[in-house]
Amino acid sequence: MKPLLLTMGDAAGIGPEIVLRAFAQGQAAGSVVIGDAAVLRRAARLAPPLAQPIALVDEPADAAGLPAGCVPVLQPAGLPQGLAELPWGRVDARCGAAAAACIREAVARVQAGQAAAIVTAPIHKEALHAAGVAFPGHTEMLQALAAAPGAPPPPVRMMLANDELRVVLVTIHLALRRAIDAVTFDAVLHTLRITHQGVPGWAGGAPRIAVAGLNPHAGEGGLFGDEEQAIIAPAIAAARAEGIDASGPYPPDTVFMRARRRTGYVEPFDVVVAMTHDHGLIPVKYLGVEQGVNVTLGLPFVRTSPDHGTAFDIAGRGVADASSLAAAIATARAMAKPLA
Amino acid sequence: MKPLLLTMGDAAGIGPEIVLRAFAQGQAAGSVVIGDAAVLRRAARLAPPLAQPIALVDEPADAAGLPAGCVPVLQPAGLPQGLAELPWGRVDARCGAAAAACIREAVARVQAGQAAAIVTAPIHKEALHAAGVAFPGHTEMLQALAAAPGAPPPPVRMMLANDELRVVLVTIHLALRRAIDAVTFDAVLHTLRITHQGVPGWAGGAPRIAVAGLNPHAGEGGLFGDEEQAIIAPAIAAARAEGIDASGPYPPDTVFMRARRRTGYVEPFDVVVAMTHDHGLIPVKYLGVEQGVNVTLGLPFVRTSPDHGTAFDIAGRGVADASSLAAAIATARAMAKPLA
Repeated sequence: MKPLLLTMGDAAGIGPEIVLRAFAQGQAAGSVVIGDAAVLRRAARLAPPLAQPIALVDEPADAAGLPAGCVPVLQPAGLPQGLAELPWGRVDARCGAAAAACIREAVARVQAGQAAAIVTAPIHKEALHAAGVAFPGHTEMLQALAAAPGAPPPPVRMMLANDELRVVLVTIHLALRRAIDAVTFDAVLHTLRITHQGVPGWAGGAPRIAVAGLNPHAGEGGLFGDEEQAIIAPAIAAARAEGIDASGPYPPDTVFMRARRRTGYVEPFDVVVAMTHDHGLIPVKYLGVEQGVNVTLGLPFVRTSPDHGTAFDIAGRGVADASSLAAAIATARAMAKPLA
Repeated sequence: MKPLLLTMGDAAGIGPEIVLRAFAQGQAAGSVVIGDAAVLRRAARLAPPLAQPIALVDEPADAAGLPAGCVPVLQPAGLPQGLAELPWGRVDARCGAAAAACIREAVARVQAGQAAAIVTAPIHKEALHAAGVAFPGHTEMLQALAAAPGAPPPPVRMMLANDELRVVLVTIHLALRRAIDAVTFDAVLHTLRITHQGVPGWAGGAPRIAVAGLNPHAGEGGLFGDEEQAIIAPAIAAARAEGIDASGPYPPDTVFMRARRRTGYVEPFDVVVAMTHDHGLIPVKYLGVEQGVNVTLGLPFVRTSPDHGTAFDIAGRGVADASSLAAAIATARAMAKPLA
């Protein structure tokens, strides 16, 4: 199998540290870091378990020739100077610029067929913004980078997943008022198509998709809002006409509980489509963020990431937990395998 | 301690049955049912565990003199005739009228100092409507009954609670678009005051209140909406100036997870204030609805209820689960104790 690419994320956050921890714990075997070597060397000095040789490579495939125990690092050309001297836990435009350069490099490599998938360590949106990068986050940036020349960016959707719940979001980083406006027939139908194509059922095969409503009680028959009747139900009907196993809209407050996989319960759904960022993420995160994985569906390659941020409050202390990154690596490997 | 009052709810629903089940399981000791004796006798015949003597009392205090095993029932004057002959699981104006009469009786008794708190079994909104009762549900009716003569009804808030999470809602049964409009400085500040006054900390004392934002990432510094900066943060500051221990606004997707009580974790908050119905109810219900309790805060007395409806589909079959009612009784007792 081709290597996975792990972007180091914001140099002042916990990204470099959790990448090294995942290697130290044997969870990143077969992966190549896209990052700044000096930043990674600094992270390797944070705690004894993180100390590993940093080995620069020119191509992802070169990693296979390295001695065991080395961490292969592909450093994009032209990264800002002095990144490893910047303080931990501070927003800095240079960190934002470097993080963006690593993402661009990773996309170029995976699109050139040199890697199987991309796993991204956390970036800081303000640092990205300070660097003049015109994307609010990874997802939007990957979408633009994945577009064919002259073509519009492919519609993508964010999925958050853990061992018991998978949620695909119709809208993400928008003010709630604007998110409501963005819940359109096309947006819901595209989400259902992308989910159908990208998410296997827990037992394999096509997924059984539950669609959450937007309003309390899914609108209570129109008393509490009409988006369910005017937009969501027609989109579900259109998806069903295409052979997609979608149902709903269900009341948001109970559909996630119903979809939750657990011992002694036969869950009726494989994945839930949620209209807003927080309707979807509140239940995925409720039991803890350590095992959450973020998956971008709809790209021409597999991309996953841990479901947490740069954790500036603990960056540089050598204590960050790599569980979610390890889960993201495992998920990327599982999703990339059939295609690689 | 003074008795609790349990209103029987809609006579055609599962209310009478779960009330008897809670008595049979020893979970309603010290309570007095406000209801129709014939309806309760009918429910007692539904299944052997429910069979218990129904003993009419004139005053709540009379229940203390009854033999063990009797279910004390205070029957309001003038209930409709023939309630026990009506079919199970059907909307009927007589059931709505009886349910409303029981609520009125319970409020009168608790306001006269004869009882410590009210626990309400489920009513049916359509039956209430058919009976000409001009309230959509318990909350609005209790609010009106609690108003001093000539005074406006007291502002109340819904709290949903289980063993690990308690959430108070700023807005409830509104379309999401209208709920956003209803998130005002006054609405948030009133919610914080009511929460501070009505919700004890898990360890006693004043509650540590976490305030969830409205927008993704609590607005991400204004990028994803300005309600946090313009409305919620100023309301928190005003509450803090009054000595209320409120903090936030926190990102909605992680604040509930942070507030969740669990083994081996010291939770930083006692209660979360959520801006919308589903932000708050999704996490409370995620682990299952059986143990959820609905609490009305802001009334001059304690009122709780199970977090489910009349369940007309299974009414009259003797199979209804009294777990949520039992939890509501336990919560009412715990909340009433300091005041009784």
